[in-house]
Amino acid sequence: MLGDIVYHNPTKLYFGEHALDHLQEELAGYGPVVMLSYGGGSIKRNGIYDAVTAVLRAAGKTVVEDPGVMPNPTLEKLLDGAKMAREHHVDLILAVGGGSVVDYAKGVAASAWCEEDPWEKYYIREEEPSCRLIPVGAVLTMVGTGSEMNGGSVITNRAAGLKVGKVFGPENYPRFSILNPRFTFTVPQYQMVSGIFDIMSHILEQYLSGADDNTSDYLAEGLMRSLVVSSRAAVMNPEDYEARSNIMWTATWALNTLLKMGKAQDWEVHMIGQAIGAITDATHGMTLAAVSLPYYRHILRDGLPRFVRFAKQVWGVRPEGKTPLEIASEGLSCLEAWMKEIGVVLHAAELGVTEENIPAIVKGTFLLDGGYRQLTPAEVADILRESL
Amino acid sequence: MLGDIVYHNPTKLYFGEHALDHLQEELAGYGPVVMLSYGGGSIKRNGIYDAVTAVLRAAGKTVVEDPGVMPNPTLEKLLDGAKMAREHHVDLILAVGGGSVVDYAKGVAASAWCEEDPWEKYYIREEEPSCRLIPVGAVLTMVGTGSEMNGGSVITNRAAGLKVGKVFGPENYPRFSILNPRFTFTVPQYQMVSGIFDIMSHILEQYLSGADDNTSDYLAEGLMRSLVVSSRAAVMNPEDYEARSNIMWTATWALNTLLKMGKAQDWEVHMIGQAIGAITDATHGMTLAAVSLPYYRHILRDGLPRFVRFAKQVWGVRPEGKTPLEIASEGLSCLEAWMKEIGVVLHAAELGVTEENIPAIVKGTFLLDGGYRQLTPAEVADILRESL
Repeated sequence: MLGDIVYHNPTKLYFGEHALDHLQEELAGYGPVVMLSYGGGSIKRNGIYDAVTAVLRAAGKTVVEDPGVMPNPTLEKLLDGAKMAREHHVDLILAVGGGSVVDYAKGVAASAWCEEDPWEKYYIREEEPSCRLIPVGAVLTMVGTGSEMNGGSVITNRAAGLKVGKVFGPENYPRFSILNPRFTFTVPQYQMVSGIFDIMSHILEQYLSGADDNTSDYLAEGLMRSLVVSSRAAVMNPEDYEARSNIMWTATWALNTLLKMGKAQDWEVHMIGQAIGAITDATHGMTLAAVSLPYYRHILRDGLPRFVRFAKQVWGVRPEGKTPLEIASEGLSCLEAWMKEIGVVLHAAELGVTEENIPAIVKGTFLLDGGYRQLTPAEVADILRESL
Repeated sequence: MLGDIVYHNPTKLYFGEHALDHLQEELAGYGPVVMLSYGGGSIKRNGIYDAVTAVLRAAGKTVVEDPGVMPNPTLEKLLDGAKMAREHHVDLILAVGGGSVVDYAKGVAASAWCEEDPWEKYYIREEEPSCRLIPVGAVLTMVGTGSEMNGGSVITNRAAGLKVGKVFGPENYPRFSILNPRFTFTVPQYQMVSGIFDIMSHILEQYLSGADDNTSDYLAEGLMRSLVVSSRAAVMNPEDYEARSNIMWTATWALNTLLKMGKAQDWEVHMIGQAIGAITDATHGMTLAAVSLPYYRHILRDGLPRFVRFAKQVWGVRPEGKTPLEIASEGLSCLEAWMKEIGVVLHAAELGVTEENIPAIVKGTFLLDGGYRQLTPAEVADILRESL
């Protein structure tokens, strides 16, 4: 049942090979001081840094450089960024990079003028900002997280061994996001396929929940079918512009609140994946890939009708002569085959996880109740062991 | 190919049985004078008028009554509304009704302070507003048009025999729309199924165009599949809340610019339907239903791969042992069977169209070039004759 829902997503998306052409007109709507947040040196090697800073110069902006946003952005980095944003009276935070940089930018935007401890307020108590927010814009160079059009901000608190996702409301979504699929072409294959699996996982976390049949489920199936086709093409030829652009568009729509309407949502795969990420610094999408099949096989019988539908609608499994359990299992085998095809990590041991890590990972795993089966810590341990 | 696209849709959607509860908090963001635009007396009979005006009173608003917005809103009515909005210095136009009222409200919003002739500026020259816009909010009581989350404004100029759709940009979309599926329960069956077909037609106008395979196509297929399931349930039991809510949500997402991304778009069925509407005052969705099958059968061979895909993905037509033409034709037969099942008009004669009307309808039909075949006026005449 769709139920009582509110949908509000004001982010402006500029998409395509000429998307960056819109940056100058957007900048006109913001004050003169722009904090340019980015990761390592890749954007300086692939021309994107030069292209963006050229526009900032032409627009007469004062640029405050904020490099070093790591793939799993830390609380320490966020607090440094917030301090810098406040001290420079930054008018806009322009995040250039992948989801980590955009997630980080949202955290900074809500922390620069926040009187309270942002980790406690946003990431633990999950409150809404009551302070002034600095506007955020994004130039995306890696796809998967959907951060360009949502309120997600996943931050790692190393000291506490926690990687937590806060979801801000629309007031702290990026005001605009520039999505040029070509900007994603220089991403290494490992990150590309990791992002692709992150997209699939986002859709599954929403779709594989709930007992009814609502419009969101059909939209989710559509996005998954598009992703399977486009990802196969992209893995064969990463320079296939059409495939890469469909993947980029799918990534945005997979996690901008549209698919969650009327859904209970699972997110346990992400909880386990994040817990792995907190202690290994492994690439996000690969942590999800490593645990997804063990998790779904574990809960299969608890959500059998939905897994049957998944098998038929997304993978084209033919039901004739098969029991529901057989159809559902075949669907997961199709998912596995696709995962092998695109080349994601299928064993957590490859990410550096060992039997000894399991208690710590279990401890860092939040147990959610939206999926078909509420897990106990012992079950999480089983799934992790299975995933090694 | 998705190509270079811009997506921006800031409308806030409050959806569900308690959606109207959000009206009071929304009203706080607007000035004191609210123009209440609505149609005939139905909202006074079904309690919606009372519920809405109670909130307006509680919010301390001054209400300027604007009844009489007819199903095919006329230019004369729009100009009267614009004059009233200007004279009363209206701060918000609250449209309570179906798509016609919301379309009308957008036209008024852009005309009240417009120095030029709005018909010429917006509906003929298709320019953007350069004047102050009055904010618009909507409380939807009939679904189909998608007007609650787009810039569409279809106005009939009786004197000129033209029914024209202007598409405003996001600055003139409703700021918020209140979508309670129960508000649509009192709509007569005829209007309900007409709206359902309007939704299907909107999706087809976007989907049945272009030669490639992009994410928008998969989203469109998802929405069509959802609609077919929900409409069957709704026609059997119009009080099926789940079915009616999925239909309402599908209607909004069918025409809020998401599906058109990367699509050439057809819209010729709407052009012909609108031309019929200009001279008969027939219900919009029924004019589309009357001409759709003759139109699609006429262009089938020009877009064969897409009609094959439509047959397989939306209607589950099995391709084994059939030629592409057979598969495609079977798909249209499935569409026809569904149209009969839900009870739409399948012959334009039932709408009052006669052989004698055909030249006038052809004259009022804009010929667009986004579909698989660019029609000539003679072909439009053939299709109309076929549709009688």
